[in-house]
Amino acid sequence: MTDSTKDIEALIEQMAKLPGLGPRSARRAVLHLIKKRNRALVPLAESMRVVAETARECLNCGNIGTSDICEICASEKRRNGELCVVEDVADLWAMERAGVFKGRYHVLGGTLSALDAIGPEELRIPKLLDRVESEEVSEVILALNATVDGQTTAHYIADQLEVRAKITSLAQGVPVGGELDYLDDGTISAALRARKAI
Amino acid sequence: MTDSTKDIEALIEQMAKLPGLGPRSARRAVLHLIKKRNRALVPLAESMRVVAETARECLNCGNIGTSDICEICASEKRRNGELCVVEDVADLWAMERAGVFKGRYHVLGGTLSALDAIGPEELRIPKLLDRVESEEVSEVILALNATVDGQTTAHYIADQLEVRAKITSLAQGVPVGGELDYLDDGTISAALRARKAI
Repeated sequence: MTDSTKDIEALIEQMAKLPGLGPRSARRAVLHLIKKRNRALVPLAESMRVVAETARECLNCGNIGTSDICEICASEKRRNGELCVVEDVADLWAMERAGVFKGRYHVLGGTLSALDAIGPEELRIPKLLDRVESEEVSEVILALNATVDGQTTAHYIADQLEVRAKITSLAQGVPVGGELDYLDDGTISAALRARKAI
Repeated sequence: MTDSTKDIEALIEQMAKLPGLGPRSARRAVLHLIKKRNRALVPLAESMRVVAETARECLNCGNIGTSDICEICASEKRRNGELCVVEDVADLWAMERAGVFKGRYHVLGGTLSALDAIGPEELRIPKLLDRVESEEVSEVILALNATVDGQTTAHYIADQLEVRAKITSLAQGVPVGGELDYLDDGTISAALRARKAI
């Protein structure tokens, strides 16, 4: 790398900061893009510019979309009284890909964490309590990650909501396609405790 | 993903086509970029636009830079009679990172392959033969990959150059930091055949 290639080097450095990429894969990706300038690099640069201009957080639920109120919140069809609480937009997208949930979402934007000084005000918890009232929510589904912080946050929210709505959480058990041999003890215990008659 | 988020979906699809990324890591990368719009997404889009405009192949050696003749070819200092032949720009960059080679490069742009109908004309081999004459090259170092195609190409080039210059290739042996237990038989055999007195 020499002086005149500093634009390329800068691009590699920026790409290397993306989650899932490191310096080596960033170099490969950038070389790939330069070799396919018109079919890959130019359209990708343009897509990024467009997304940088249009992407925004939904003021209601925290989902990322291209308007102030996301499509899900804007749809009357999805106002069925069910509200699914997730930690992150990625979790919302994962739920949507599963395609089973027909209600609305609420993205917390993280989990409570005493260590990182993240309290309810840093998350979207006050807004959640508002929504449960104003949107006449009958069931709050806590789809938080099965981590310590996720479960602490779930308990906190359940305490806050108490009698205002029915509160449920995702079932724990053996993943579809999962092999017992590869599962951790905690998952097996949970699956056994929640066993069902067939 | 709904209609109004199709720009975001399009960006994820394009990112997923990069080597080293798949749909899942592309989604994570795009979410990361959107969350850091001003610090990551906007500068990255701009860097890509700049590179798309300025990056080009060196007309002499095939390296990628920002002018018609790359910095290495343009530098008189690097005209020391040594010419290092590599398959790809990535290999050239790897050699430069090692920082030991002080001569010039020649990027073939691939290897000979009967199966894919890639002959000498499809690579930068005629240009290589020209350069060996015109740049008064005294030594051609064949730094091709230790694959069947790489070695076939090396033999072909060695045949073509014959008496015009001294021809060498990279040493084969145990990688620095390598453990014998993890090396393949071929590498161990090569290292043993090339053993040196200490």
